[in-house]
Amino acid sequence: MGVDAKTVAKLRADTGAGMMECKKALTESDGDLEKAKEILRKKGVEVAAKKAGRSTSNGWIGSYIHHNGQIGVMVELNCETDFVAKGEVFQGLIKDLAMHIAMTDPVGKSKDDIDPEVVEKERKILSEMVPEGKPAEIVDKIVEGKLNSFFKERCLLEQGFVKEPKITVQEHINSVIQKTGENISVGSFARFQIGGGDDE
Amino acid sequence: MGVDAKTVAKLRADTGAGMMECKKALTESDGDLEKAKEILRKKGVEVAAKKAGRSTSNGWIGSYIHHNGQIGVMVELNCETDFVAKGEVFQGLIKDLAMHIAMTDPVGKSKDDIDPEVVEKERKILSEMVPEGKPAEIVDKIVEGKLNSFFKERCLLEQGFVKEPKITVQEHINSVIQKTGENISVGSFARFQIGGGDDE
Repeated sequence: MGVDAKTVAKLRADTGAGMMECKKALTESDGDLEKAKEILRKKGVEVAAKKAGRSTSNGWIGSYIHHNGQIGVMVELNCETDFVAKGEVFQGLIKDLAMHIAMTDPVGKSKDDIDPEVVEKERKILSEMVPEGKPAEIVDKIVEGKLNSFFKERCLLEQGFVKEPKITVQEHINSVIQKTGENISVGSFARFQIGGGDDE
Repeated sequence: MGVDAKTVAKLRADTGAGMMECKKALTESDGDLEKAKEILRKKGVEVAAKKAGRSTSNGWIGSYIHHNGQIGVMVELNCETDFVAKGEVFQGLIKDLAMHIAMTDPVGKSKDDIDPEVVEKERKILSEMVPEGKPAEIVDKIVEGKLNSFFKERCLLEQGFVKEPKITVQEHINSVIQKTGENISVGSFARFQIGGGDDE
């Protein structure tokens, strides 16, 4: 079926993907906008997976300091070339990530990145919340389920992206990987808050 | 003896201390500029020591990103009141500290703040550098001496302040404590560098 120009324009505005990609996705989804987004998202995962092995030795460091000076974030974002690092799309991603981290206060990048002590503490809190009298395997299952929710809420790459909460931060990064054609990874980040204890 | 206005002006310019303080220090030092600086510095230590117990629950977060985006620093600086945090002197100190950290890449704030693993690693490297055949106590003394130099070179508060290398960073902070009349302490800091491994 034909794909109307308005829907293509909407999909481009929503996802930032290229004209041809949007047309292709909409053709595949029979003009369904949400399905087309899903198709683009899956393609993003594929593209990102292909680039994942590539070395990201270039990059840029950005920061966001809240106007009242009470919250500050610094992010190191890596990519493959200096050229991409200086580009508008990459620079926009750094700004977005810094702002996102300021708002959501992640405890780490991903599961693997979180201090095992933090995980253990959270596991303990969660297991104490399970009502007594349940078999051990059930308790374990409940705790592991809750722990996964904890990671989704508190790990940067698994969090819903604040500017587009339906997708995760990693999915948003994937879309930038698609746009730039380079592997992109978050290096380090730090978040300071006056009087609030510091998280990183 | 009388103190000439030019020397007072020079001392004020060099140290940023108040007119009356400078006059007093120069009178005490018989007009000797360097001695007067030493007197002010000692007074700074005394004043800072008196304020040291006071809680610093306010403050401000500042950052310095090098123009090429390859080095970034974020600093949390604490003081007693919001009023001082917003003031010019305190804000200037944050900027100076961020720039200093960008240039000197400290491994921590002070001895106590450095990861014991880093200290142990350094101690090992240093002890391997001592020529063989010396008694164990001598080796220990040499290593401890070199370790102290390491702390002086790599710990923020003990480093020579880049804008005024004759005084340490802590001494510079002391002069700001004198000026503001509030206890001031460095909270956290982070330094990222693209492709260089991250230090904090």
